[in-house]
Amino acid sequence: MSTPTDALQRLRRVHEDAVLSALRSAGGLSRAQLTERTGLSRTTMFAIVSGLLERGVVIETEGSAAEPRGRGRPAALVSLNPDAGLLLGLDLGRNRVRLAVANAAHQVVATASADLPEEAGPEEEAESAVRLVRAAAAERGLSLGALEAIGLGLVGVVDEHLPPVPLGGERSAVVPARYLPLARRLGEEFGVRLAVDNNARLAALAEATWGVARPVRDMVYVRWSVGVGGGFLAGGRLMRGAHGAGGELGHVCLDPEGPPCHCGSRGCLEGHIGGRGLLERCAAQGVRLPALDALVAAAQDRVPAVCEIVASAAADLGRVLAGTVTQLDPALVVVGGELAGLGSLVLDPIREAITERSLPRSSREIAVVPADLGVNASAMGAIALLLHEEPSIPAHLRPDVP
Amino acid sequence: MSTPTDALQRLRRVHEDAVLSALRSAGGLSRAQLTERTGLSRTTMFAIVSGLLERGVVIETEGSAAEPRGRGRPAALVSLNPDAGLLLGLDLGRNRVRLAVANAAHQVVATASADLPEEAGPEEEAESAVRLVRAAAAERGLSLGALEAIGLGLVGVVDEHLPPVPLGGERSAVVPARYLPLARRLGEEFGVRLAVDNNARLAALAEATWGVARPVRDMVYVRWSVGVGGGFLAGGRLMRGAHGAGGELGHVCLDPEGPPCHCGSRGCLEGHIGGRGLLERCAAQGVRLPALDALVAAAQDRVPAVCEIVASAAADLGRVLAGTVTQLDPALVVVGGELAGLGSLVLDPIREAITERSLPRSSREIAVVPADLGVNASAMGAIALLLHEEPSIPAHLRPDVP
Repeated sequence: MSTPTDALQRLRRVHEDAVLSALRSAGGLSRAQLTERTGLSRTTMFAIVSGLLERGVVIETEGSAAEPRGRGRPAALVSLNPDAGLLLGLDLGRNRVRLAVANAAHQVVATASADLPEEAGPEEEAESAVRLVRAAAAERGLSLGALEAIGLGLVGVVDEHLPPVPLGGERSAVVPARYLPLARRLGEEFGVRLAVDNNARLAALAEATWGVARPVRDMVYVRWSVGVGGGFLAGGRLMRGAHGAGGELGHVCLDPEGPPCHCGSRGCLEGHIGGRGLLERCAAQGVRLPALDALVAAAQDRVPAVCEIVASAAADLGRVLAGTVTQLDPALVVVGGELAGLGSLVLDPIREAITERSLPRSSREIAVVPADLGVNASAMGAIALLLHEEPSIPAHLRPDVP
Repeated sequence: MSTPTDALQRLRRVHEDAVLSALRSAGGLSRAQLTERTGLSRTTMFAIVSGLLERGVVIETEGSAAEPRGRGRPAALVSLNPDAGLLLGLDLGRNRVRLAVANAAHQVVATASADLPEEAGPEEEAESAVRLVRAAAAERGLSLGALEAIGLGLVGVVDEHLPPVPLGGERSAVVPARYLPLARRLGEEFGVRLAVDNNARLAALAEATWGVARPVRDMVYVRWSVGVGGGFLAGGRLMRGAHGAGGELGHVCLDPEGPPCHCGSRGCLEGHIGGRGLLERCAAQGVRLPALDALVAAAQDRVPAVCEIVASAAADLGRVLAGTVTQLDPALVVVGGELAGLGSLVLDPIREAITERSLPRSSREIAVVPADLGVNASAMGAIALLLHEEPSIPAHLRPDVP
């Protein structure tokens, strides 16, 4: 049950959203116009606008004298602050950090990336990330003073039950221990709110916000790369789970008699079809490849042994996804990650396994499609996370995201 | 993206919820008091209250003279209509119809059930349901004129993509063809709004609203009976899926080489562990039992062959649930249906399989517990559906249900 305080906070948020939404569509409006458009009382409207002004989300300008008004000075106009509202999405991958920046109109205006040093420690990672942000801003002429919030995509589980880390002022964030130095460094450096989530889940959110899953509300996303990750959308909302592990596909048990996995279970999907497993199977067939890029290239060159291994792994993935599809009944299965770049070589076996082994009701109508957004998906998803969670952003989308 | 109309409708709904919530906690309030408590403008408040009065959700009474007021008549008080707000939950099972009735305070005040004739056709089913409702109302002295809405639980898929069936006036509902006569008959007879969902999913919603899953927002519910059904809660919301099949557990493929299933796939969980499959396996061991009740009784009497078969089926169910738990990361797994009544005989093998084969992160903390609500769970869930979906009911819970 909601408490009265929850209800009031939600009401205030809905009111803010209504005000910001009106400003977004109309440009500048007087308080009287805002009152009329939103149905709020004058008292409520003044409180909402004051709060938004204080946070720098809106600004006040002199109204034009052309606006009809009985007498005296023209009413002040409230409008969105053009110098605020830059949103930064950061994706801390296993060996690369990527960023995307969106403006107040929610358009992505910059992307960039940098390698992380082999075996980089948390502090080094934090420095790389900050350096990348500063360099990208300088190159694109973006003022970091206009930065409103940072979304951060991480490898691993983001558990909301962890205690939030203070980041200075009233800011805090829930971050796994591994990423505390990064969170603190970003807090010191930029002094804005931080929202955090798993980067595979964020890639799913990005596909649902800007990519191939834009029209659907129920979606299963799998990222097939060195690791195997996933993200599910149910009724338009990202499923996080009770401990932040919602969307986990890599550790579904494929073979109960299979080899032990680092997670403590046996025969996990990731062990079978993740980058390392694929490279090992190729080596066992006499095809030695240095890394996943090379394996993808060999499959594109139609090296038979590699194609066979990849297709068989895709069928394994499809077997797991068949269960997911039966249980979640999505409108769409989206396959991302490097392996998705192989097109029908991987998509066909996945599609066949789903059609064969899931409830026909769903599988008849289900499409299995490659992801749209490429390598910046998680960084963009980190921005999408802010759009859906940052209270100072018109988030009337929230219950129905995207 | 939300349209402006969506945003306005949502705003109006939030305002109605705020008003109804205030009335629910305070009893009667004047419009001025309501305006003050909700922060709405006088104009908005008058419009909201007029709408609620018109729909008979609230009534207006003379305020007491004791209330301090400058001069003139005491202000009229608005309060919830005690003669409205009866909610009926109907559960159309395979051979039984059950009902539950809740009052305006959302307390269940009556339950009842009736057998459906063997091989009953849709018309006969509709008559049985209406007869049961009338008889229960007469027995409890409930006025059916105070009925505000009916929630209906059905076997099978409730697909929101079907065209809505007109039920008279402005009312309509989305109902599978099999249940059209019932929906029409309920429309004619009671003339109130109808909300429809799958009855296993409704049992899950009931457990989350009144039962064992009340404190959690992420839950996997399985009903193990003649059939095997399920319902998932993600972030406090029931997962329906893109075609109304969300929560399906019975048709997850357990054994790709298994026998064909009526759904068109092979080796489905329901074929292995559903009532018919269990009875067949018992018969193959020389234990002939007429029906599932007898099987449950034999297991309670610790007949060794029956216990062995049930325990092994529970382990199969646990194997499927391990995948579900890894992917959805619930806080709780709830087992309902007749088989759940066998306690540790079924719960232990389920728990073991989940612990062994799901991501330890989740399984370490996950509880596997029997359902609380017994045979009326789906009928109660049909009421819960109304509480969460009926706009004239304080549904500020909606985004955070339960």
